[in-house]
Amino acid sequence: MSLWEDMGCSGKRVLILHHDDLGITVAQNHAYRRLGFPTGSVMVPSGWAMALGSDSTTDLGVHVTLTSEWAAPRLRPLTGGASLVDAAGFFWSSVPEVWQHADIEEAGREIEAQIDSLAAWGVEVTHLDSHMGAGLRPDIAGRLVEIARRRALPVTMPENIDDLALPDVFRDPLLNIMRDAGMPRLTIVNTYDAPAADRRTWYIDTLSQLRPGVYHLLHHAQVPTTEGRQLGDWEKRQADLEALSDPGVRRVLGEFLPLTYAEVRKAYRQYHP
Amino acid sequence: MSLWEDMGCSGKRVLILHHDDLGITVAQNHAYRRLGFPTGSVMVPSGWAMALGSDSTTDLGVHVTLTSEWAAPRLRPLTGGASLVDAAGFFWSSVPEVWQHADIEEAGREIEAQIDSLAAWGVEVTHLDSHMGAGLRPDIAGRLVEIARRRALPVTMPENIDDLALPDVFRDPLLNIMRDAGMPRLTIVNTYDAPAADRRTWYIDTLSQLRPGVYHLLHHAQVPTTEGRQLGDWEKRQADLEALSDPGVRRVLGEFLPLTYAEVRKAYRQYHP
Repeated sequence: MSLWEDMGCSGKRVLILHHDDLGITVAQNHAYRRLGFPTGSVMVPSGWAMALGSDSTTDLGVHVTLTSEWAAPRLRPLTGGASLVDAAGFFWSSVPEVWQHADIEEAGREIEAQIDSLAAWGVEVTHLDSHMGAGLRPDIAGRLVEIARRRALPVTMPENIDDLALPDVFRDPLLNIMRDAGMPRLTIVNTYDAPAADRRTWYIDTLSQLRPGVYHLLHHAQVPTTEGRQLGDWEKRQADLEALSDPGVRRVLGEFLPLTYAEVRKAYRQYHP
Repeated sequence: MSLWEDMGCSGKRVLILHHDDLGITVAQNHAYRRLGFPTGSVMVPSGWAMALGSDSTTDLGVHVTLTSEWAAPRLRPLTGGASLVDAAGFFWSSVPEVWQHADIEEAGREIEAQIDSLAAWGVEVTHLDSHMGAGLRPDIAGRLVEIARRRALPVTMPENIDDLALPDVFRDPLLNIMRDAGMPRLTIVNTYDAPAADRRTWYIDTLSQLRPGVYHLLHHAQVPTTEGRQLGDWEKRQADLEALSDPGVRRVLGEFLPLTYAEVRKAYRQYHP
C-alpha cells in the first residue's frame, strides 16, 4: 500500500493547490489571504516571510530558497556559506550558478536554517519544496530528503521530472533518491508558462482534462500593486490571482478532492512511525 | 580650522537633508525618487536596499542596522553573529537588547559587511549613520568610528547628544569618541516626533528659527501604499513626504546652503590625507 492509497486517494482526482513564493512581497502575501486557499510555501530569506502568521487555516511549508534571481528584492542566505553567494553576498542569481558553486554541507546547513527559522517564528511547517528547482542537483536533493525524513516532513516529489528541463545526468540519481525517499510522488501542474492573457481558460481546460491521480498545482498569485510589479513577471502573478478568483475556475477546482500537506504529513508520520 | 570652516560653512545656515531608512520598502525608495533630494542612508539588510541605484544624483550612506523592530519586514544580519540575533535568527527587536547582547567583534564584522555589501553593488558610499541609535553603545560607536576612519568615510556625529535619551553612562565615553574622531559634529533635527497632523507648519517653524550652523535634518518620507502601511509608523512617514513636497517648506529649505555627505567626504579626505 502506498501513502496515497492509505489516504483514500485511489481512483480519485486529488489536488493540492499550492501557492509558491509566499513572503517575497506584501503583494504575494495579500493574494494568499485574498484567495483563502490554505497551502503554500514560504521563501524564508525574504523580509515578509514572517508576516503570514500560522493558524488552523494555514498549511505552510518552506520553499527552500537558494537563488536571488530578481534585481530586487535581493535575498541572502541565513547562514554565511561562502559557496552560496555572489561577490555582494547575495544568493546566486541563477540556478546553474547554484549547481556549479554550492558546497553540499553549506547548502544543507542553509536548508536546515530556513526550516528552523520559520518554525521558531511559530509556523507549523507542513512540507518542503524547492524554489526554482535549485535544490534538484542530486546531492542537494538527497540532503533535502534526508533532512525532511529526520523531521518527518513531506517533500514535494514530482512524478513528471522530464518536464523540468534538468541536465540528463541528474535524472537517474534523482529517480533513485525519490524511490528511496519513502514519500510517494505526485504530478506537478505548473501554471507559470500558461498564457497570461487567457489564463482562466487554461486553468479550466487543463484541470478539466486531468484523470484520476494526485496533483500539485503550483501558482504564483500576487496583487498587482506598485511593490508587486517590481517582480518582472508580475503579469503572470496577476493572471494567477484573477484566474483563481474566477467562479468558473473555482467550479472546476471544486470537482477535485482537496488535499493539504498537513494531511499528507499526518499520514506520512503514521506510515513512517 | 575645523572641517566646517574649511568648507566655508562659518556663519551660514547649512543643511544636510537626510532620508533615513532607505531600502526598507519599495514605498520608502519611491519617496526618495519622488522628492529628488540626494542624501540618505540605506538599511543594507533589507531586500530593497539594492533597488535604489547610484549615480551622480545620489548621495547614499549606510544606515548601520542592528535591530529588526517591525513585525515585518524582519531583518537578519549579513554575518552570522549569534550575539546579534534572537532565537529566530533576526536582529534584536529593541535597541536595549542590542546594547545588552551584542558582542563588539560580531557587531564590528556586521558593520563592515553592510558597508562592503552596498559598495559591492556599485553604490559609492558617502557616509555612515546608525539606525535607531543602536550603534551608540560607546564601544560600538568607537568601532564604527574606527571603521569609518580606516575607509575615510564621514560618520554622522550629533552635537546634541543630550536629546538622544541615552543611558547616562554612555555620555562621557561618547563625547570622548566624538572628540577624538577627527570629524566635526552637527546638530540633528529629527522630524520623527513632530506632529503628523500639521508637520508642514512644524517644518516651516522649526527651520525658520534655526540660527547659523550645520544641521542634519533627518526624515522618513514614504509613499502610503499598502506595502508602506505595513510599517506601524507609516503616518509619520507620509507626513514627511507631504511636508517635503510642500512649496512653503521647499521655500524655507531654499534659504539654507545645501550640503551633501559626498562634499563632506571630499573635504574630510583632504583634511585627513
